[in-house]
Amino acid sequence: MNKSESLLISAINMMKYPAKAHARNVQQHFLNKKVSATADNTAFFIASAVLKQYPYCDQTAPIRQNRYFHYLTGIDQISGAYVLYHVLKDKLTLFLPDVDADDIMWSGLPLSPEDALKEYDVDEVLYAKDVENTLKSLKEKNVNIYTTDIDEYSTKPFSKDVISGDIDFFYALDESRLIKDEFEVELMRHAAIITDNCHLAVMSALPIESNETHLHAEFVYHSIRQGSKFQSYDPICCSGPSCGTLHYVKNDDPMDGKTSVLIDAGAEWKCYASDVTRCFPITGKFSKEHLEIYLAVKDMQTKVMEQIKPGVLWDDLHLLSHKVLIKHFLELGLFQNGTEEEIFDSKVSVWFYPHGLGHVLGMDTHDVGGYPNYEDENPYLRYLRLRRKLQKGMVVTDEPGIYFSPFLIEKITEEQKKYVNMELVEKYMYVGGVRIEDDILVTEDGYENFTKITSDPYEIEKIVQKGLNKGKGGFHVIV
Amino acid sequence: MNKSESLLISAINMMKYPAKAHARNVQQHFLNKKVSATADNTAFFIASAVLKQYPYCDQTAPIRQNRYFHYLTGIDQISGAYVLYHVLKDKLTLFLPDVDADDIMWSGLPLSPEDALKEYDVDEVLYAKDVENTLKSLKEKNVNIYTTDIDEYSTKPFSKDVISGDIDFFYALDESRLIKDEFEVELMRHAAIITDNCHLAVMSALPIESNETHLHAEFVYHSIRQGSKFQSYDPICCSGPSCGTLHYVKNDDPMDGKTSVLIDAGAEWKCYASDVTRCFPITGKFSKEHLEIYLAVKDMQTKVMEQIKPGVLWDDLHLLSHKVLIKHFLELGLFQNGTEEEIFDSKVSVWFYPHGLGHVLGMDTHDVGGYPNYEDENPYLRYLRLRRKLQKGMVVTDEPGIYFSPFLIEKITEEQKKYVNMELVEKYMYVGGVRIEDDILVTEDGYENFTKITSDPYEIEKIVQKGLNKGKGGFHVIV
Repeated sequence: MNKSESLLISAINMMKYPAKAHARNVQQHFLNKKVSATADNTAFFIASAVLKQYPYCDQTAPIRQNRYFHYLTGIDQISGAYVLYHVLKDKLTLFLPDVDADDIMWSGLPLSPEDALKEYDVDEVLYAKDVENTLKSLKEKNVNIYTTDIDEYSTKPFSKDVISGDIDFFYALDESRLIKDEFEVELMRHAAIITDNCHLAVMSALPIESNETHLHAEFVYHSIRQGSKFQSYDPICCSGPSCGTLHYVKNDDPMDGKTSVLIDAGAEWKCYASDVTRCFPITGKFSKEHLEIYLAVKDMQTKVMEQIKPGVLWDDLHLLSHKVLIKHFLELGLFQNGTEEEIFDSKVSVWFYPHGLGHVLGMDTHDVGGYPNYEDENPYLRYLRLRRKLQKGMVVTDEPGIYFSPFLIEKITEEQKKYVNMELVEKYMYVGGVRIEDDILVTEDGYENFTKITSDPYEIEKIVQKGLNKGKGGFHVIV
Repeated sequence: MNKSESLLISAINMMKYPAKAHARNVQQHFLNKKVSATADNTAFFIASAVLKQYPYCDQTAPIRQNRYFHYLTGIDQISGAYVLYHVLKDKLTLFLPDVDADDIMWSGLPLSPEDALKEYDVDEVLYAKDVENTLKSLKEKNVNIYTTDIDEYSTKPFSKDVISGDIDFFYALDESRLIKDEFEVELMRHAAIITDNCHLAVMSALPIESNETHLHAEFVYHSIRQGSKFQSYDPICCSGPSCGTLHYVKNDDPMDGKTSVLIDAGAEWKCYASDVTRCFPITGKFSKEHLEIYLAVKDMQTKVMEQIKPGVLWDDLHLLSHKVLIKHFLELGLFQNGTEEEIFDSKVSVWFYPHGLGHVLGMDTHDVGGYPNYEDENPYLRYLRLRRKLQKGMVVTDEPGIYFSPFLIEKITEEQKKYVNMELVEKYMYVGGVRIEDDILVTEDGYENFTKITSDPYEIEKIVQKGLNKGKGGFHVIV
């Protein structure tokens, strides 16, 4: 498909989220997988998220839509809705939440069936009160109604009428979600654009960023301004040695006197995630050690990127990124007393790069279909969240990193120690860590990088310096 | 107590959140209330919030701390912790979550018992693994262990050892929480300062606010910048007729061509809420109708405020605010064909001001101890969340409003209609609504208003105009 064809399709698709196509796709995977299922006797039924009150108070938690429900409807902020797909009739039915007449006084008119039919790619719109009879009449026709674990979401006891949490149904949903169609790709491109702008804003605003919480505020601000109320995940904003804490959640340390910033944050657009990490120097100029590590990570990321195409096993790319790390560490003198191969075999690099190279990205940040094996005895692969060959239409993150964390370094075994120049490692501790993360679509014969915000260290220096030169008074809103 | 005494006490208190004093306070209320309880046979046990994964994915929902746990510890972002108060020994024990050695590699060191003892006002710090034996040994001494509904939070089955969800325990906790001590008052003053700055920023930034989502972004940005990562509740940002939708959640309409803005938003500071509403004109100059309604609401708020002191029944102030509304509506010609009394008796004003005058404020936005009666047959009082006499140390919101909502107006009964000049009402519809909301501490002989951001309409015009005059290039970060 050439670009203009692709644009045409995407223009057509942008009209409605392709819920019906998703349902058919799931059906295909399901019927192929489940022996007892036929087109005649199969239906799918999924509940939306349910608005939940915090205990002992009248406030509700924010709704995070059930991704499976969203996949078959395209509806985000709704609670108490259901979707049913009847395979034989190829019919997608949306059940809207029952109307509470009193509630209109406080909240205005809810979505009407007529508007829902116009807005969403479904064949029929009923109300939640109609679910029970609809399911009953299907059961009477000996149709098996498959669902995800309904109890997690539903407030109603449908369990008698449905086959709960069927593993083949999950398989079919996940295999379908794994491959993004052109509509989903457009949503993810848009999420990536929002995120690019947010990272640019964070890099540009150092005169008013003296605490990590300011980085966080800056990112969230530009995300909401662009219509992305939610982030895909809680932003990780660290400075100095904290850049080595992988699950950093504090985001509230002063940045004074530190060298490095690492920000891992992505906007969510219509339930689709972006997930991007950038690092930059607080002074506008990379320090020697910071730059050395930065260039090593950049090389790891690039060498992987060049290999991305259908058919490539992700495990292999993960191991490749370790090999690139080892080569750089030998050159820098951080590793010693061994060949690249010997050091690779020792697995010592795991303590400087403990996480996986990347993961599937979609409606979830760590999207479905990656099939990680957290029990894997091989420490290289234990935390790798994607363990399969790449296919066209998969979106993955390419996010290698190098960290100098005391809690990782203390895990280096006696055997591994001979390969590490600990004295030199000490000199890099202040950097904390570097990670560079882009969002990558696997295409027919290669890849498309959704992430456009530069990761070139010299470009980044220029952006930071431009911001610094403006000073506090020169702060401008981006977008 | 004079001001310097108060300051001294507050300086001392600021050192640690007074968890122990809270426990004693709860104990006093509890022993007074529960016939079978004595100091010898009573203990309290409360679980913290539990980090919850979203279904079918590896992400967790944000932690919202169990307010009752926080009240007896002062700890916010922790999951899997417990607190025990043994009345006889006057001993407060904190159980930290068990340490996961693997997790240190990813997240760094967790809070240690030594640091917890230093930081929090507790007598002893153990780990979650010690809970079972500790409770068992209390049971062996015939101590009754009262708790809130532990299942809501706990991941462990303690139910055999505790008396779940005791109603008198809730009563004691709520009566204690109702009256804020000087430490809590300081936290709430701080939350109010953050919120003042946020509202000022929103009012000042109109050149870059063309959509409601920009108001939202502005508020959240300044909140996070000041260290308040969470808001007390989801900000309500409306413009034009939407200001009449009380539970407005969209926050994404363009503001172009509209007259009014209503923003109801408050920052949370260390688990304590603020809750403030301001309205302003998009042009920098109130329109005739907008100003008339604004001045009426302002008068309602002021007349109530003047009456706030211990001993006053909140129901009476709520009814007073309706009387002030009626007086203004008669003057404006919106009400007609009746005396103030006749119109008050008809209850027609409920359709222009359907919600309550205000509520208790504390760790929850609608805090405990208000004892509303949503079944009340009197429509004036049905939605009033505070139904008792004011006491020193209570914090309440004073938040009257006037709305022009088609969904409210269509509820005006045939009998009530003669009092309403519907033709004139039509001319006010574009305003949508006005609410003015401040956070008020009940003092010994009056009140202290925490909320300092001006609600004077002419001051507000000046702030908006100052922002408008600066233009897009003149945007500056406040704080």
